[in-house]
Amino acid sequence: MSSSPTTPLSYEQAGVNYDLIDPLKVAAQRAAAATGAHLAAHGFGEVAGSRGESAYVVDVGPFYVASIVECLGTKTLVADEMKAATGRSWYAGIAQDTIAMAVNDLITVGATPLVVQAYWAAGGSSWFADAERAQALVAGWKAACDTCGVAWGGGETPALAGIVEGGRIDLAASCTGLVNPKERLSLGERLGPGDAIVLLASSGIHANGLSLARKLAERLPQGYLTEIEPGLSYGEALLAPTVLYSPVTEALWKAGVRVHYAANITGHGWRKLLRHPKALTYRIHTVPPVPPVLKFIADQAGHDAAEAYGTLNMGAGFALFVAAADAQRTVEVARACGVPAWAAGQVEAGAKQLFVDPLGLHYGDGELNLR
Amino acid sequence: MSSSPTTPLSYEQAGVNYDLIDPLKVAAQRAAAATGAHLAAHGFGEVAGSRGESAYVVDVGPFYVASIVECLGTKTLVADEMKAATGRSWYAGIAQDTIAMAVNDLITVGATPLVVQAYWAAGGSSWFADAERAQALVAGWKAACDTCGVAWGGGETPALAGIVEGGRIDLAASCTGLVNPKERLSLGERLGPGDAIVLLASSGIHANGLSLARKLAERLPQGYLTEIEPGLSYGEALLAPTVLYSPVTEALWKAGVRVHYAANITGHGWRKLLRHPKALTYRIHTVPPVPPVLKFIADQAGHDAAEAYGTLNMGAGFALFVAAADAQRTVEVARACGVPAWAAGQVEAGAKQLFVDPLGLHYGDGELNLR
Repeated sequence: MSSSPTTPLSYEQAGVNYDLIDPLKVAAQRAAAATGAHLAAHGFGEVAGSRGESAYVVDVGPFYVASIVECLGTKTLVADEMKAATGRSWYAGIAQDTIAMAVNDLITVGATPLVVQAYWAAGGSSWFADAERAQALVAGWKAACDTCGVAWGGGETPALAGIVEGGRIDLAASCTGLVNPKERLSLGERLGPGDAIVLLASSGIHANGLSLARKLAERLPQGYLTEIEPGLSYGEALLAPTVLYSPVTEALWKAGVRVHYAANITGHGWRKLLRHPKALTYRIHTVPPVPPVLKFIADQAGHDAAEAYGTLNMGAGFALFVAAADAQRTVEVARACGVPAWAAGQVEAGAKQLFVDPLGLHYGDGELNLR
Repeated sequence: MSSSPTTPLSYEQAGVNYDLIDPLKVAAQRAAAATGAHLAAHGFGEVAGSRGESAYVVDVGPFYVASIVECLGTKTLVADEMKAATGRSWYAGIAQDTIAMAVNDLITVGATPLVVQAYWAAGGSSWFADAERAQALVAGWKAACDTCGVAWGGGETPALAGIVEGGRIDLAASCTGLVNPKERLSLGERLGPGDAIVLLASSGIHANGLSLARKLAERLPQGYLTEIEPGLSYGEALLAPTVLYSPVTEALWKAGVRVHYAANITGHGWRKLLRHPKALTYRIHTVPPVPPVLKFIADQAGHDAAEAYGTLNMGAGFALFVAAADAQRTVEVARACGVPAWAAGQVEAGAKQLFVDPLGLHYGDGELNLR
């Protein structure tokens, strides 16, 4: 199957069919929900509001325990192609991406990430024979743990010939943390009209939308080496490591800012701003600058703004919902952590919907079904 | 490459080359160890003795938090072949195997497993189109959570075409638990001469040694349908789900038995009894019955007893080290949980080594390098 560069390319055409995955997800979510009652036998209980959120939260008395496992996805395929094209190893950044997938989800509930476990499933023992690549993965993993102040507890390095493709690696991370003190819990109980929406800058595509990005590379005569701006190749831009946002959420707590709710903007792009089940209207008045690689992808895929912002992060990797009085302080704290941030909008009473006013975009309820 | 059924088959010939993996593991373990200090900034600290053990433990004050991520391995390849041969789905048992890999490791440190997260990475969305298989995976996962009294927190169901092979799935589980009260910690501080070794029955191969088992199937004219005893095929025997041992460790605590140390007998077989770093001699006087499938594998692979017991669980899936006075009670509690158990040996002063007296086996220090 080939398609010309001017043919629009949807996410489904890029190979991800959510219709097939979603019935399983629904069945799994129902079965999982029925197991929460087991915690009572241990004297504990689940925080029911965390079902359907980005991390699962258990009330163990003095604090809450949050946990998660997250997959990197297919970004390693870009790293592998870029290694072939440039001779460089990109796995230090890939390690950061993998940890970011877990940490950035865990912190949405108000948890401090404490322990990360590594899941590195290779297509065979020979994956580990490339010492430069393996050492880059180790060094990048440690550096990301250092940035987030988490302990790397251990992990798994299975060789799975016959399951993982030869020469490839399936990367994931699990993360366990505490919501401590318990008032840090940010499952949205305090989310309401008048709250400010602060957007934190992304570094590029992060680790969502890579199936689409890889399909586009196949169409480009120069592939990943296509320059998207002088001196910056498409591949290198794609491989910018995902921003780790936990230093920001930790600094906010220390600065006295209580986060009402948070959304990690990953798959489904800005539709993730609609994540909380409350009926609320979200209105964006300030749109962050779009990283060149995301503009390039949207252009090449023939996406209009509605599809681009509904699929990719478009420059905003994380959203914090805080009291309006805390908005400016939140921006300052994030910037002090080295993360550009914008007081970008507000929460209003009204039907569940999102307006991005500068772009004339509107996403209604029903455009994000995660539960 | 073909080999006659009479040619011995080692683990390395079966495709796992630990020489290539181990340098990475060493580098990763060193880097990971350096991150433990981060916990101090949060007011916590790692339990240093858990480094190198089966789960990582953090002291958070009122109790310890333990966490882990574990891969199933390649047992799904047997399930897939057996589906083709029999038309049945084997994924309910596969789900139990996956949870067992995580839970049985987590409990070795004395933790009560509280939350399991599912990691189901398929080779493409189409994996989930086989509704019978997908529902078996969900139902088996829930049933295993019910058996262990853990909450299924959620998880990941990525479609990873290009990384995971088409039609295959990479299964793993993360698990978080608490050591509560803290005196339940069983990292071996109390392990010493005079302790009894209680072995808990396995159901078969569990989920370690499958690369070898699959290679042997290739040699058999009838493959997985070879009868290893009347009415029981090799494939069905291999797919007996791994025993979940957490009901036993929970019942032991309630019965007042303090476990000094525990070893999950997975890869490296009975050499795992040498896991603890202390210089101690372990002497086994009673050998549990060998499941027919393990006897069959050892025979077919041409393993002598030393290689068989040093590679496979040979009927003992889990070892508990308890005070001699608690040995009989431990056996009774396990049996009351439906798990056959034997007071099988004792710990003695002496060099780090393992004797299996009835079989004349001896494993010295240096035959298990996990740290």
